[in-house]
Amino acid sequence: MSEFLKGLIRDIPDFPKPGIVFKDITPLLNDSKGLPEAVSAMAEPFRGKVDTVLGIESRGFIFGAPVAIALGVGLALVRKPGKLPSDTKQMTYELEYGTDTLEIHTDAIPKGGRVVLVDDLLATGGTAAAAVDLVSELGGDLVGASFLIELGFLPGRGKVSPVPVHSVIRYD
Amino acid sequence: MSEFLKGLIRDIPDFPKPGIVFKDITPLLNDSKGLPEAVSAMAEPFRGKVDTVLGIESRGFIFGAPVAIALGVGLALVRKPGKLPSDTKQMTYELEYGTDTLEIHTDAIPKGGRVVLVDDLLATGGTAAAAVDLVSELGGDLVGASFLIELGFLPGRGKVSPVPVHSVIRYD
Repeated sequence: MSEFLKGLIRDIPDFPKPGIVFKDITPLLNDSKGLPEAVSAMAEPFRGKVDTVLGIESRGFIFGAPVAIALGVGLALVRKPGKLPSDTKQMTYELEYGTDTLEIHTDAIPKGGRVVLVDDLLATGGTAAAAVDLVSELGGDLVGASFLIELGFLPGRGKVSPVPVHSVIRYD
Repeated sequence: MSEFLKGLIRDIPDFPKPGIVFKDITPLLNDSKGLPEAVSAMAEPFRGKVDTVLGIESRGFIFGAPVAIALGVGLALVRKPGKLPSDTKQMTYELEYGTDTLEIHTDAIPKGGRVVLVDDLLATGGTAAAAVDLVSELGGDLVGASFLIELGFLPGRGKVSPVPVHSVIRYD
């Protein structure tokens, strides 16, 4: 794990609600060395192994395009409902309270296309698991999921299983 | 203007509402040649001229990080309200119906820092103008705004003036 990158993550207590310590990545993004190093570290294990990067709205969008460029492939988007203009598939998943929905364009991933999911944070894994299901519904081959940060004390990795998880910075 | 890139933009009629022709950039993002070419074209005029790239939520996030990496600088974020965890400044601006609000971390841009704003689309310019005001409030020096697409038949360029606008693909 990169101590340099970890040193660029800022703890914000009680955000978004009391008792939660939010891992703020904005100092890392703001750092001219930290940003490209994070992108390289997220892309590295997937070099030559994927055809498409899947970026998850909205912080996943930050890393999706540079990881895709580093891997020499295109970027597909998973968005909140009503944002994608063409034909979509939807997936609704459970949150702590209530549900949330994600969408993908039905032509975003070719059948059999090898996909790596990219997001900033793996926490409970609900969003990532829904994205995994969307790729599977489109007939894509999800070869892995790459996160800048993994909260190892939450069940995210198990939720995404059997898709292999790669994380650059881990908190246990 | 790049005819190759323009050929990767898809028209979606009547989205998000009847009478609007939406310029869908997802085929361009999905193209392994189109994505890096778009990023290079957005970054090129600002090489050596800026200290920070400002990415606007949420499609601006897609281009913000790779443009920052291409320019060798960091990325600052402008987000919808309640998403940024530390101290923020807010700016509320008018839409066709109602208002919208954007936020920036108060430490996102150093005083006097040279900034280029990055977003996918310049249309009416309301969002971009609000981001210009936020940079100005933080004491940043906005040297330009870079868009993948400019709708030249809308008043966006004038709204952002006197900040110079660079766009890769223009529709008149």
